[in-house]
Amino acid sequence: MAKSYDVVVIGGGPGGYVAAIRCAQLGLNTACIDEWKNDEGKPALGGTCLNVGCIPSKALLESSENFERISHTFPAHGISVSNPSIDIGKMLARKAKIVKTLTGGIEMLFKKNKVTRLHGHGRFVGGGEPWHVEIEADGKTEFIEARHVIVATGSAPRQLPVAPFDGERIVDNAGALKFAEVPARLGVIGAGVIGLELGSVWHRLGAEVTVLEAGDAFLAAADEQVAAEARKQLTKQGLKIHTGVKIASAKATKKNVTVEYQTSDGTTVKETFDRLLVAAGRLPHTDGLGADRVGLKVDGRGFIEADEHCHTNLHNVWAIGDVVRGPMLAHKASEEGVMVAELIAGQAGHVNYGAIPFVIYTSPEIAWVGKTEQELKIAGVAYEKGQFPFAANGRAHAMEEAVGFVKFLADAKTDELLGVHIVGPHASELIAEAVVALEFRAAAEDIARIVHAHPSLAESMHEAALGVAKRTIHI
Amino acid sequence: MAKSYDVVVIGGGPGGYVAAIRCAQLGLNTACIDEWKNDEGKPALGGTCLNVGCIPSKALLESSENFERISHTFPAHGISVSNPSIDIGKMLARKAKIVKTLTGGIEMLFKKNKVTRLHGHGRFVGGGEPWHVEIEADGKTEFIEARHVIVATGSAPRQLPVAPFDGERIVDNAGALKFAEVPARLGVIGAGVIGLELGSVWHRLGAEVTVLEAGDAFLAAADEQVAAEARKQLTKQGLKIHTGVKIASAKATKKNVTVEYQTSDGTTVKETFDRLLVAAGRLPHTDGLGADRVGLKVDGRGFIEADEHCHTNLHNVWAIGDVVRGPMLAHKASEEGVMVAELIAGQAGHVNYGAIPFVIYTSPEIAWVGKTEQELKIAGVAYEKGQFPFAANGRAHAMEEAVGFVKFLADAKTDELLGVHIVGPHASELIAEAVVALEFRAAAEDIARIVHAHPSLAESMHEAALGVAKRTIHI
Repeated sequence: MAKSYDVVVIGGGPGGYVAAIRCAQLGLNTACIDEWKNDEGKPALGGTCLNVGCIPSKALLESSENFERISHTFPAHGISVSNPSIDIGKMLARKAKIVKTLTGGIEMLFKKNKVTRLHGHGRFVGGGEPWHVEIEADGKTEFIEARHVIVATGSAPRQLPVAPFDGERIVDNAGALKFAEVPARLGVIGAGVIGLELGSVWHRLGAEVTVLEAGDAFLAAADEQVAAEARKQLTKQGLKIHTGVKIASAKATKKNVTVEYQTSDGTTVKETFDRLLVAAGRLPHTDGLGADRVGLKVDGRGFIEADEHCHTNLHNVWAIGDVVRGPMLAHKASEEGVMVAELIAGQAGHVNYGAIPFVIYTSPEIAWVGKTEQELKIAGVAYEKGQFPFAANGRAHAMEEAVGFVKFLADAKTDELLGVHIVGPHASELIAEAVVALEFRAAAEDIARIVHAHPSLAESMHEAALGVAKRTIHI
Repeated sequence: MAKSYDVVVIGGGPGGYVAAIRCAQLGLNTACIDEWKNDEGKPALGGTCLNVGCIPSKALLESSENFERISHTFPAHGISVSNPSIDIGKMLARKAKIVKTLTGGIEMLFKKNKVTRLHGHGRFVGGGEPWHVEIEADGKTEFIEARHVIVATGSAPRQLPVAPFDGERIVDNAGALKFAEVPARLGVIGAGVIGLELGSVWHRLGAEVTVLEAGDAFLAAADEQVAAEARKQLTKQGLKIHTGVKIASAKATKKNVTVEYQTSDGTTVKETFDRLLVAAGRLPHTDGLGADRVGLKVDGRGFIEADEHCHTNLHNVWAIGDVVRGPMLAHKASEEGVMVAELIAGQAGHVNYGAIPFVIYTSPEIAWVGKTEQELKIAGVAYEKGQFPFAANGRAHAMEEAVGFVKFLADAKTDELLGVHIVGPHASELIAEAVVALEFRAAAEDIARIVHAHPSLAESMHEAALGVAKRTIHI
């Protein structure tokens, strides 16, 4: 007879593994199916995020930022060195070690919490009460059953028909995380998070980087003013960014890849790169899930239909993370996983989709939560704005990173915070305060009246809050 | 006739200049008297904090941390250099430039807000309604009168009778910010913020540093567990820290300074240093204020007596910052300045002394807000504790700074947050979220249910909050 569980989670990324751990903590007999194999061919939990996403990219961003500091910041401090060089192999080895530590950590967490880990490809077979699921690995198939199924199969890079991945010259995020040497010329299709982060990494290490974005707007999801500042700073650093580009073709040879594209003014350009990173969005990974066998509703783009509690059209079948509506963010997936686990256990559970932080780890970093100015304008919401530049922040000067700004947007009538937007040093950490403020439905005046440590970058949050009432102290 | 103001602020540090700006913003005719002169002999606003405190120390901490990275962190990233060196003159010049930018900035803010700046030593003459104040500069004395006086004269380094400052071998914070070369051996008396920060700066640049602390406890004000971790890390870095030390004498020659002290076990030690930094606390700077002329109450240690609204025993005379009770912190002084300005203008104004963040900018950084465990134990408050190590945080690994921890303390009955303690990377910025949480009287569960960006150091705050209910995900 098939082994039976309270909950089976399909997918071991930040949505799935967190859901599985939380289920187990709540006393549910839980299994997690995951098919990821790392470069050594060994099963590895953590999904895209830990293996070829958030974590390895941050490792390389840190390495490359340190390397760039030598020429960019050290002279101002009076620090000089000769013959700076970076051993790409060692840099990648450090990245791999961090990934191994963290993915291995999840394995230990599974053991500690008594989550059964099943390696292989998970697929619905049929059933209802309970659900029947098969796990296929190395040609063998195992069957299990579960009262609840949580689908957390994540997403995969979108392939462009004009520039298909070849894993060598035309690569996705995973490929761009392991170039054995710095490409002299790197082309990047897509000016999203992945394109800008990995473009920055290789640019700092010496690559000439051209970013080709199909959209007319740069970072369309971000606040327009933040996007403009980010574009200005990245361009100043030397990234060539083109928006409104139409890619006609990308032809790879053994040595390089030639991209033909039309710029926004209609000019046709033929440019040859050593490598081409295609980061033109990601698609939900629901192929091969057996959705049709059980009647699980999947929309035309491959997203599983789910309500605000991540329940699908099928009883006791849930879907979380990149396979459902909402931003494709690891922390959004994790919180959905916790919510679903708690709902299954009979507790309350919810995710406040209005208070999910967005972060882009370029330099300067970009982070925001809540509404952008353009969203408020479209919605016809009257708002007040407070803004403060890091150029007036002492800590930013001490760090030699006095670039960018913080912007607070508050309801003109109630003063309730509606959005907080940061482009500047450590935006990724500063945003945490803003998320807490939004969750507590703080007024701008609340933050303005809260003491902020001196000297800290967070003082710019304080001043931006003061700015909403036109009472900044330091500008 | 003497010129008349609504408000005269005596002292142009972070308490005084902020009070003056806020008064002016609220329509009060305001003057600010300040006597500081910088090394060039020119008047400079900003007081100790901007001139010889928070800002220049952070500048040197950043420079020295960058220099230390070359040998400590770069190899892990695969980065190698030859002949690393730091030009102390350039490092100090960068610091001086930042100080000049920021102190000059206050001058501009005074102009913009129409605060009258008066250079010289401010002193009460007499009066009551209005108060008469004299300003003495370069042998000339000017008289003004004001309806309100805000005393913000700050503090000065405490001099030890056994180790009097000579400005050359035995120095205070100001002296230790401008050593023309790295002392081979630096002695530091006092393991407080100044001693540890400046001790770290010169240690990173190559000095052998011995810290001698009179108290039996290391960082007695901090949470004991945080203090222990900080001591462990600083000791590992190479700082020699002795607590329970009695200084017998310090004798300076032209070349060095010999300190005789007794260690906690009674051994007498004679140690010779190239320089000795005495950072044994600070005393309120109320000498020469003319307090006795008007009957302003000053206690035996020199602190001006003030109520929780910073009002003194004299009508319309206020005192803020280091001259009154409470922690000697720039941001505490600034917030008191804002409070007093708003009270003078007839508005409401208060400072929540229970939610003032403390920061020590060592590496790892230390920051906290609210109660420590030892305080809660003494008060007999039942509490729950949640703790999370940065060793389990992905961002910290990517940064190669996976050291330290976050600790949340919450009321055992109500779950209300009582204290948050951090020792680890960017603690100075992470604490901002905790201050907001305390101000909103958040429960640990609130923070546990708020989405934190991945990957970020702030996730450790999230996990520590989860830990209060014994439900961390990642440990």
